[in-house]
Amino acid sequence: MDQSVTRMHVPHSHVTFDDGIVLECGTTLQRLTVAYRTYGTLNADRSNAILVCHALTGDQYVAERHPVTGKPGWWEAVVGPGRPIDTDRFFVICQNVLGGCMGSTGPLSYRENPDGTQTDEPWGTDFPPVTIRDMVRAQKRLVDHLGIKRLFAVLGGSMGGMQALQWAALYPDQVFAALPIATASYHSAQNIAFHEVGRQAIFADPDWRNGRYWESGLIPARGLAVARMCAHITYLSEEALTRKFGRRLQNAPKDSTEAINLFGDMFEVESYLRHQGSAFVQRFDANSYLTITRAMDYFDLAADFGGDLAMAFKGARTRFLLASFTSDWLFPTSQSRAIARALNRAGANVSFVEFPTDKGHDAFLLDEPDFHRALAGFLRGCAIHAGLQRL
Amino acid sequence: MDQSVTRMHVPHSHVTFDDGIVLECGTTLQRLTVAYRTYGTLNADRSNAILVCHALTGDQYVAERHPVTGKPGWWEAVVGPGRPIDTDRFFVICQNVLGGCMGSTGPLSYRENPDGTQTDEPWGTDFPPVTIRDMVRAQKRLVDHLGIKRLFAVLGGSMGGMQALQWAALYPDQVFAALPIATASYHSAQNIAFHEVGRQAIFADPDWRNGRYWESGLIPARGLAVARMCAHITYLSEEALTRKFGRRLQNAPKDSTEAINLFGDMFEVESYLRHQGSAFVQRFDANSYLTITRAMDYFDLAADFGGDLAMAFKGARTRFLLASFTSDWLFPTSQSRAIARALNRAGANVSFVEFPTDKGHDAFLLDEPDFHRALAGFLRGCAIHAGLQRL
Repeated sequence: MDQSVTRMHVPHSHVTFDDGIVLECGTTLQRLTVAYRTYGTLNADRSNAILVCHALTGDQYVAERHPVTGKPGWWEAVVGPGRPIDTDRFFVICQNVLGGCMGSTGPLSYRENPDGTQTDEPWGTDFPPVTIRDMVRAQKRLVDHLGIKRLFAVLGGSMGGMQALQWAALYPDQVFAALPIATASYHSAQNIAFHEVGRQAIFADPDWRNGRYWESGLIPARGLAVARMCAHITYLSEEALTRKFGRRLQNAPKDSTEAINLFGDMFEVESYLRHQGSAFVQRFDANSYLTITRAMDYFDLAADFGGDLAMAFKGARTRFLLASFTSDWLFPTSQSRAIARALNRAGANVSFVEFPTDKGHDAFLLDEPDFHRALAGFLRGCAIHAGLQRL
Repeated sequence: MDQSVTRMHVPHSHVTFDDGIVLECGTTLQRLTVAYRTYGTLNADRSNAILVCHALTGDQYVAERHPVTGKPGWWEAVVGPGRPIDTDRFFVICQNVLGGCMGSTGPLSYRENPDGTQTDEPWGTDFPPVTIRDMVRAQKRLVDHLGIKRLFAVLGGSMGGMQALQWAALYPDQVFAALPIATASYHSAQNIAFHEVGRQAIFADPDWRNGRYWESGLIPARGLAVARMCAHITYLSEEALTRKFGRRLQNAPKDSTEAINLFGDMFEVESYLRHQGSAFVQRFDANSYLTITRAMDYFDLAADFGGDLAMAFKGARTRFLLASFTSDWLFPTSQSRAIARALNRAGANVSFVEFPTDKGHDAFLLDEPDFHRALAGFLRGCAIHAGLQRL
């Protein structure tokens, strides 16, 4: 494992596979780099590994300070010593997804020539389209590289849950337990529509320059911020927005050139969204955003199995915990319930819990004690069944 | 009544009041122009007038071909001879709202100097902020001008419903019946958030030029299109999007420079949204969009009455019909129910119907026979009570 520097000027732990990967779209990447972090210790028989899969704008920094933002890891509430995913017991792996912008091969990586030699400019929008299955296959390479024959568990929320489902479908014998959280087996028309608004906002930014923004030294910050703002609303619930901000006003910044501030004040929720937008563009690459939103849009696990989701899990011995949140309207409970029904039809071992919360889709990232207790309890039970440890 | 030409190069029937209007923000407009259309015939005692209030992106062309798009009027399903709002019986008035872009005073109008003389450039973003109450007061001027002492009914959906509520609160003795449809007595944090995304998309478009886009001859078409796309999703339901488009793919246009099309295909829902965006910018002014979204955001009728919505309707003799639609998540039934409760507390005469539909907020504009029957029936009953006609 060595260090490299991405275009975002941060070194990431990574491994490069020089035999590359053939993507679902048919394109071959001659080299595959996967950036990742691990927490805890792999036990002697390598049976205590948990793969955490991140969501659209997440990354491998699950349980430690983020090297760009300086903020805590995105799932420190869940992963760490004594946490529901206890790093004193488990060896936790998280990999930046294929197509991401935190060190794994993606639009920021150097483009390859058709003969496999490397150019000195990024792929940008010439980066081939990737799918959730491609992401999972890239993760499998890392898991193999670490000498792990079977993952004790694969889990994640949102797009991370799509990956957990794909893992269970693709490598059923190598996943003891799968925990798809706040997710779906396909991306809905409404979800595709919201992603498309974000993409169009990026395309509309002249600094995007048809994806070749590195040539100007600028990034399409305004378009990417609008994309983030729109997406962010879908991560929250109406109740949460009302509870947090309601209709409260605050003074608008005096130096703004934006017309709306001529009114002299702005709603707190507007200020919050603007902050979300401007913070996001500091850490995320616009072309990665295009690539990964597309991967989510294309996800339809049943379609790979003749339209019958149960067939994806036929004969699976993996133990499943499905979790959804009452106020999540982006990946509503009905989507998790459909997965649970398919798993039941497949005769799989499945638990399904819907957690009451007003926090919307974001609930899976936040302080939800019942959810955390359920995670810990499920993993404890699985550990006993796996003969992993006495509890 | 004479004709004028807006910056959108379409003549609109209008009337100008040379004594102007003092806005809620304190600014005086020295002249007030209101563009409007009427349908049907005002009866001898001027008792059969119905004011239809349009929504955010609507206009006065309710029941006739639109002069810019050439499409049918936006409510031809409801307003016309033999329709639920029967123009063989009623005299229907619809006025482009103050702040609009179809002939009424708004950001496209010539800016006034402080001394009241007119400049030769548009207001643009210097147009003062207007409120729903300002819009209603501008409508009242037209109603007075037409010699109508009491409106038989005021109705509208969405922002039109806000106006109907404001009419009933502001001029209780001059509104026999009010029909606020798919609306709310205040704009919620989530709704403000979606509006803010649209505004930021406009601000992000360099062709917006801090609102002075007339100087370049260009309009901020891409930003405004993104705003429309985002808003359009909120007008539909997830069910409607799934029913209409699902996950169906179509070929992407070959000549597009947009990266996403490099995938070779696109989802139908994306194509539909892009069309909605590009069609919208042909007929709507970006600065009007900023002004009117802000008016909606500021709407909070109870706040004008010490926070108690019932006080807005105290002693009202107006008959109310509230209508909501099951799949409308932008103005959900809970908002209409809250209005109904306030009206009940105020001792008002109120009917409230929730219509089952999968069409979302847009249902009020679409073919909803039960809704149309309820409108017609309610108006028939009111006509009897008003002694308007024998039926």
